[in-house]
Amino acid sequence: MASSSSLTLSQAILSRSTISRHGSAQQLHPSPTSAALSIPSFSGLKAASSSAAASVSRRRAPATRLPVRASAAVETLEKTTDALVEKSVNTIRFLAIDAVEKANSGHPGLPMGCAPMGHVLYDEVMRYNPKNPYWFNRDRFVLSAGHGCMLQYALLHLAGYDAVKEEDLKSFRQWGSKTPGHPENFETPGVEVTTGPLGQGIANAVGLALAESHLAARYNKPDSKIVDHYTYCILGDGCQMEGISNEACSLAGHWGLGKLIAFYDDNHISIDGDTEIAFTENVDQRFEALGWHVIWVKNGNTGYDEIRDAIKEAKSVTDKPTLIKVTTTIGFGSPNKANSYSVHGAALGTKEVEATRENLGWPYEPFHVPDEVKKHWSRHTPEGAAYESEWNSKFAEYEKKYPEEAAELKSIITGELPSGWEKALPKYTPETPGDATRNLSQTNLNALAKVLPGLIGGSADLASSNMTLLKMFGDYQKKTPEERNVRFGVREHSMGAICNGIALHSPGFIPYCATFFVFTDYMRSAMRISALSEAGVIYVMTHDSIGLGEDGPTHQPIEHLASFRAMPNILMLRPADGNETAGCYKVAVDNRKRPSVLALSRQKLPNLAGTSIEGVEKGGYTISDNSSDNKPDVILIGTGSELEIAAKAADELRKEGKKVRVVSFVSWELFEDQSAEYKESVLPSAVTARVSIEAGTTFGWHKIVGSKGKAIGIDKFGASAPAGKIYKEYGITAEAVIAAAKEVC
Amino acid sequence: MASSSSLTLSQAILSRSTISRHGSAQQLHPSPTSAALSIPSFSGLKAASSSAAASVSRRRAPATRLPVRASAAVETLEKTTDALVEKSVNTIRFLAIDAVEKANSGHPGLPMGCAPMGHVLYDEVMRYNPKNPYWFNRDRFVLSAGHGCMLQYALLHLAGYDAVKEEDLKSFRQWGSKTPGHPENFETPGVEVTTGPLGQGIANAVGLALAESHLAARYNKPDSKIVDHYTYCILGDGCQMEGISNEACSLAGHWGLGKLIAFYDDNHISIDGDTEIAFTENVDQRFEALGWHVIWVKNGNTGYDEIRDAIKEAKSVTDKPTLIKVTTTIGFGSPNKANSYSVHGAALGTKEVEATRENLGWPYEPFHVPDEVKKHWSRHTPEGAAYESEWNSKFAEYEKKYPEEAAELKSIITGELPSGWEKALPKYTPETPGDATRNLSQTNLNALAKVLPGLIGGSADLASSNMTLLKMFGDYQKKTPEERNVRFGVREHSMGAICNGIALHSPGFIPYCATFFVFTDYMRSAMRISALSEAGVIYVMTHDSIGLGEDGPTHQPIEHLASFRAMPNILMLRPADGNETAGCYKVAVDNRKRPSVLALSRQKLPNLAGTSIEGVEKGGYTISDNSSDNKPDVILIGTGSELEIAAKAADELRKEGKKVRVVSFVSWELFEDQSAEYKESVLPSAVTARVSIEAGTTFGWHKIVGSKGKAIGIDKFGASAPAGKIYKEYGITAEAVIAAAKEVC
Repeated sequence: MASSSSLTLSQAILSRSTISRHGSAQQLHPSPTSAALSIPSFSGLKAASSSAAASVSRRRAPATRLPVRASAAVETLEKTTDALVEKSVNTIRFLAIDAVEKANSGHPGLPMGCAPMGHVLYDEVMRYNPKNPYWFNRDRFVLSAGHGCMLQYALLHLAGYDAVKEEDLKSFRQWGSKTPGHPENFETPGVEVTTGPLGQGIANAVGLALAESHLAARYNKPDSKIVDHYTYCILGDGCQMEGISNEACSLAGHWGLGKLIAFYDDNHISIDGDTEIAFTENVDQRFEALGWHVIWVKNGNTGYDEIRDAIKEAKSVTDKPTLIKVTTTIGFGSPNKANSYSVHGAALGTKEVEATRENLGWPYEPFHVPDEVKKHWSRHTPEGAAYESEWNSKFAEYEKKYPEEAAELKSIITGELPSGWEKALPKYTPETPGDATRNLSQTNLNALAKVLPGLIGGSADLASSNMTLLKMFGDYQKKTPEERNVRFGVREHSMGAICNGIALHSPGFIPYCATFFVFTDYMRSAMRISALSEAGVIYVMTHDSIGLGEDGPTHQPIEHLASFRAMPNILMLRPADGNETAGCYKVAVDNRKRPSVLALSRQKLPNLAGTSIEGVEKGGYTISDNSSDNKPDVILIGTGSELEIAAKAADELRKEGKKVRVVSFVSWELFEDQSAEYKESVLPSAVTARVSIEAGTTFGWHKIVGSKGKAIGIDKFGASAPAGKIYKEYGITAEAVIAAAKEVC
Repeated sequence: MASSSSLTLSQAILSRSTISRHGSAQQLHPSPTSAALSIPSFSGLKAASSSAAASVSRRRAPATRLPVRASAAVETLEKTTDALVEKSVNTIRFLAIDAVEKANSGHPGLPMGCAPMGHVLYDEVMRYNPKNPYWFNRDRFVLSAGHGCMLQYALLHLAGYDAVKEEDLKSFRQWGSKTPGHPENFETPGVEVTTGPLGQGIANAVGLALAESHLAARYNKPDSKIVDHYTYCILGDGCQMEGISNEACSLAGHWGLGKLIAFYDDNHISIDGDTEIAFTENVDQRFEALGWHVIWVKNGNTGYDEIRDAIKEAKSVTDKPTLIKVTTTIGFGSPNKANSYSVHGAALGTKEVEATRENLGWPYEPFHVPDEVKKHWSRHTPEGAAYESEWNSKFAEYEKKYPEEAAELKSIITGELPSGWEKALPKYTPETPGDATRNLSQTNLNALAKVLPGLIGGSADLASSNMTLLKMFGDYQKKTPEERNVRFGVREHSMGAICNGIALHSPGFIPYCATFFVFTDYMRSAMRISALSEAGVIYVMTHDSIGLGEDGPTHQPIEHLASFRAMPNILMLRPADGNETAGCYKVAVDNRKRPSVLALSRQKLPNLAGTSIEGVEKGGYTISDNSSDNKPDVILIGTGSELEIAAKAADELRKEGKKVRVVSFVSWELFEDQSAEYKESVLPSAVTARVSIEAGTTFGWHKIVGSKGKAIGIDKFGASAPAGKIYKEYGITAEAVIAAAKEVC
C-alpha cells in the first residue's frame, strides 16, 4: 500500500501533464489508492506507459532484486566491453546521421562528437526510469547545445523511452513528430527543458540543480536522503560565448552546486568556422574564477575511461559544480567533413554518409540498432523501474516518520496546491489607504509563501525596490540552501532561465523573479522560453511606466506591455490596486503552464471601488457604470496606474450627465479567453465610443477601442523628471480622457 | 586655411547634430571655408559654443603655444599639489551630493567613491576640448555604471563643458534639463553614449575602442598618427555581473584592444547589500582568462599616485585591454552611510549631508566650486582648444599627402555620405530569378561597402546563414584591425551594444550586425538603446518567420515584428523581394539617427511586379490595383514573404471580377510619417474591406485593417516541420486571404 502510494505519487505528474494539455481532468483510470492518501487528490493515470511502468515495478522489481546502483553509480558499474561500448556509441552516431539525412535538415556534427559522453551518461551513470520520465528522483539531463538534439533522441530511444521509437526517429523534424528540431520538453517526455537558443540550457541546469539542493536541504533527514539526484548538462562553444551562461555559472559557483556536472563539448568549431576567429579566452581559467572545479578530458572521441574518471572525480567534489571540458571532434567519423563547420548544421549527404559508414565500419541499414546494443540497453527498463520502486519504498517510510514534510514535498512533486490556498490572498476596500502595487505585491508574496510550499524566488539585485523579500525566510545560499529568498545579483537573463529550470524540476515549484519592467529586455529570451516550455514562472516587474520618474527613459518602459501582449502563452497582468494585485497573484499561481508577467507601480495608487479578484480573472471587467441596458455613452478603459485616471474622468463626465462605463483591462489574454457573451457585456459592439488610457505605447489598443475610438498613451521615449510632471507633459491625464471622450461620443 | 578647414571638419559634427534634431539644415552660419574643401558639403555651424571654440583655437592656440601633452599625457603632466587634488575631488563629491539632495533623487554613492579616479582622468589624463565635445580625436569616456551620472556631470562642469553649467547641476533630474537621471548622449554634449542599463556601457566602450583601432589601422601613416585616442570606462559590480559585459570583454581581449582602459569600481556593495550575497567570483582571474591585463589599485579613495601609476602601466600594455580594479568605499566621506547600500540610490538627507560636510572639512554652500579649484580646471578650455588646433594642423598636412584617405576619413568623421551612394543599390525586375531576401541583403551590403567607407559589421556566428560577409574585405582581427568583417561570436547582446559604440564614435560609421530575427530577444536592450541614443545601427535579422521551417518554435519569430513596431524611434522593415530589400537599405543608410531592423527571409521569394525603392521609402504603397477612383472592393495588405501570397490571392479574386488593391506594408513607421493625403491614397478610409496577411502575430494589425477588416497571422508558437507544411497548417495561404476577402467585401 505504501509503495503504491508513492508510486502513484510520481505518476501523478504524468497525470497532471495529461490533464493540463487537455484542459480538464480525464477520469479514465482513477487511481485505486488515491482515496486513502493524505496528499491532495489527483485524478488519473496516463494510460499505456505509466500503467506499464506500474506493472513493471509492482511485478518485477521486488522479484528480480536488481542490484540498485549506489549514488555514485559510475563507481559500481561493472564495465561493459570496449567493443560493445564502441558499437553503442556508433549506433548513436548513425541514428543521428540517418535521421538528419532522412529529414535533410538538422545538426549531425554534435551527436557524432558527443556520442561517447552521451553513452557514458545514459548507459553508465544516470539514474532514470524510461517508462516514467517524470519519476521525481531521476537525474536530470540538459542538452544546452540544443541543436544537437539527435544525440538526446538517440539516447532516449536506446534507453527505452516511449516517446522516441524508431518511427519517431524517422519523422525527425516533421510535422507533429515527437522529435522536433530542438529539444522541447512539451513535445517529448524525457526532455527536461526546451533548448536551442544558446546558453539557456546551462542556466536551466543551474535552476534544476538549485531545485535539487533546496529540496534536499529542506526535506532530507539524517536517516533518509529522499531527495538525491544529479544534474548533467552538455554545452558547446556557442553556449560558452553567450553572456547568460557566464551569469548562470557565476551563480552556480557562488551557490556551490556540487551536484551540477557540465560537459563542455570543446570542439573548436562554431558555425562561422574555427573558434579562433572569435573565442580565444581561457575557458578553464574563467570557470575556476567562477568557483567551479574544472577537469579536462583530452580525448573525448574514444577516451571512455577518461570520461568515466572525470565523472567520478566530479562527484567527489561536493562543494563546487564541475566543468568537464571534453575535447572532441565535431562530426567524428566523417572522413571529409569532421572537424569543420560544414558538419555542424546540415545533412552529410548520401556520399559522405556512405564514406562515414565505411570509415567507422558500419555495415547496417539506416536506423538499425544492432541486437547486442539493443540487448545491452534493454536493462534500463527494469533497472529504471527498480530505481523508482526503491525510491517509492523509501518515500513510504519517510512519509510515516515525517508526515508533515512528506505532505509538503508531495505537493511540490505533484503540483497539487494545498486546497484553499487562495484564502491567503489579502482583500481591500476603497477605504484601505493606497499603496504602490509593488508593495501590495510583497504582501501577496509573503501571504502566499505561508501556504505554498513551492514558492521560491527573488530579485536581480533589486529586492528592496521590487519588494520581493519573503520576510519569514532567509537567503538561499551555499550554507543555507533550505531558505527561499534567492539572490540573483544583476543577472536578469540567467535569473529567468534559472527559474525555468526550477519550474520544470517539479510541477509544484512556483518560482518568481523580479527586476524593473524595462529590464525584461535583458531576459526576454528566457521569458519566451517560459511561455513556450510551459514553465509557470511569475515575473514580478516593478517600476512599470514613466511613473517611476527621475531615472528617465532608460528605465521607463513604453513598448513593454505591448511586446508581451504580442507573445504567445504568457499572461501580461497590470493591476490597478490591492484587489487587482491579489487577483493577479491568484491567476499567476493558478496558471502553472502559462507564465505571468506582473507590471507593478513604483508610485502609490488608491484602492478603487469596484475592483475584485474575480474581475481580474476575467481579464477585463466593468468597475463602475451609470448606464443601463448595456448602452453607455462612452466606455473608458484603463489599466494599472491609469485606471484611477479613467475613474476620475468618469466622475467628471457623469457630473455633466454622461453615462459612462469604466473598464479595467488588466489582462488582454484572459479577456480573450472569455465567452463572446461576456465580452459583449463588457464591450458591447454597438458602443463604438471608447477611450483607452495607459502610460505606454498605444500600439495594439486599436483592436480594443476600434476604428472610432481613441487610444491615449505614449508613443515616444520617456523623460527624466518627477513622475507627476511627466504624466502632465505627456498628456496622461483625466483632462485628456475627458476631451477624448467628448470627441468620440 | 588648412587649419580652419580641419577645424570646420570637427565642427561639422556639431552641425549635423543640430541639423538632425531640427529635421532640416539651418543655414544660419554658412561655413566660410566649406566651398574650398573636397569633403562633402555641410551647411552650418552650431552657433555660440562652436564659434567660441573656433575663436579660441584661432586666436589663442598658435599664440600661447601651450605645452601639448604627449600621447601618454599622464607621464608628462606636472603634479598638482595633493591639497588641491583633494579639494578638487571633494568638489566633485559635493556637487554630486548637493545635486542629488536638491533633486531628492539620484545616486550619490558612486560619485563619492569614484571622485578620485574621475579627477585623475578628467584633470590629468584625458585629452578633450570642452568647447567642442565632438572633436574627433578626443579621448572617449563611458560611465558604464550610469546611475553615478552626477560624477560625470560634475566632471564636465569643472572641465568647462557648456552643457553642464551650475544651473544644469541645480536642475539635475528635472524636466527639460541637460542633466537627466542617467547619462544620455542625445541630451548632454560631452556624454558619449547612453548608459544606465547595466553592462551596456562597457560594451559601448569596446565598440568605441574597436572604432579607434579600426580607423587607426586604416588611416594612420608611418608619418602621421592621425587617429590616436583612448577609451576609458568606469564600471561597477552591477556591470560585472551582467552577461553582456563578459561577452564584450571576451571580445575586447580577443581583439587585443590595447587602448581600452576600464576602471572597475570595486566597492563590494550593490543594491541588495554586500556583494558577498551574490557575487563571489574572482573577477581579476576572470579578466585574465579573457585576455586582459589586470591591475589592482588597493586604495581608490585617496591613493592618487596608485591610480596614476596604474594608468601609466595600462598605457604601456599595448596589446591587451586593461582592467584597473580600484577598491573604493561607496559614499566615501559620509560618516554614517559610507560602505552601505543606503548611500547607493537615495539622497543622503540634510543631516547626513551636514555630517559629511563636517567629516570632509567642507565649509561651502551647496554647489560651490572653490576658486582655486575653478582656477585649476580653467586651463582645460585653452588646452582643449590647443589639442584640437594641433590635430587640425596635423590633419591638414595629412590631407595634402593622402587626399584619398583623408576624404574617406572625413566622410566618417562628418557623417556626410558620398554623394550618389544610393546609385550602388541593385535593381530588379519581375523577370529576375527569385531569391531569399537574406541573399539579396548580402548583395546590397557588398554593393554598399564599396561606396560607404563607414560600413562595418558582422554576425553573431551566423555569417553564412545571415549572409553578411563583405567579400572584398577580410576579418577585423587583432592583427588585421583595418578589415571590415567583424566576427562577434555567439554574443548577440554585446554585438548590439558594441555597434552602438561604433555608431556613436563618429557619425559616418554605419555599423550593421546580424543574427536570426528571433534572437533579437537576446539583444533587445542594446537595440532599445540604439533607438533611444540615436545610434543608426542596421540590424540584419534573417530567418524571419515560420518560413525557416525545421528548426522549430525556439527559432521562429512570432511576436517580434510587433514588438519592434511598438518600440519608439526604430524602423522595423520587412522587404518582400529584391527592390524592397534595396529600398530597405536605402532607408537604413539614410536614417543615421534611427536604427533599422531588417527582417529577412530564409526562403526564396519571387521578384514581384510593382515593388520599388521609392515605395519602400513611403512605408506602405500600392503594388497593384485594378480599381479606379481609389475605390477598390478590397485591399489586401502583406509584408515580406507574405506579399507574394497577397498578390496571388489578388490574381484569383480579380479573375472573379473583384477590384483588388495589393498594398505592401514594409514599414509601419515610415507610413506613419507620410501625409494624411498620401495615407488616404493607399488606404482610403471609405474602404473598410481590408485583409492583412503576415506570418507573425496579428497583434497591432487592427489599426490597419480596422474594425471591419481581417488580420491573418499566427497567434501561437510555431512548429518544427518543412516550411511549406507549416504555412499550410497555420493557414498562411492565398486561399485563406481569398476567403477572408470574400467575408469582408
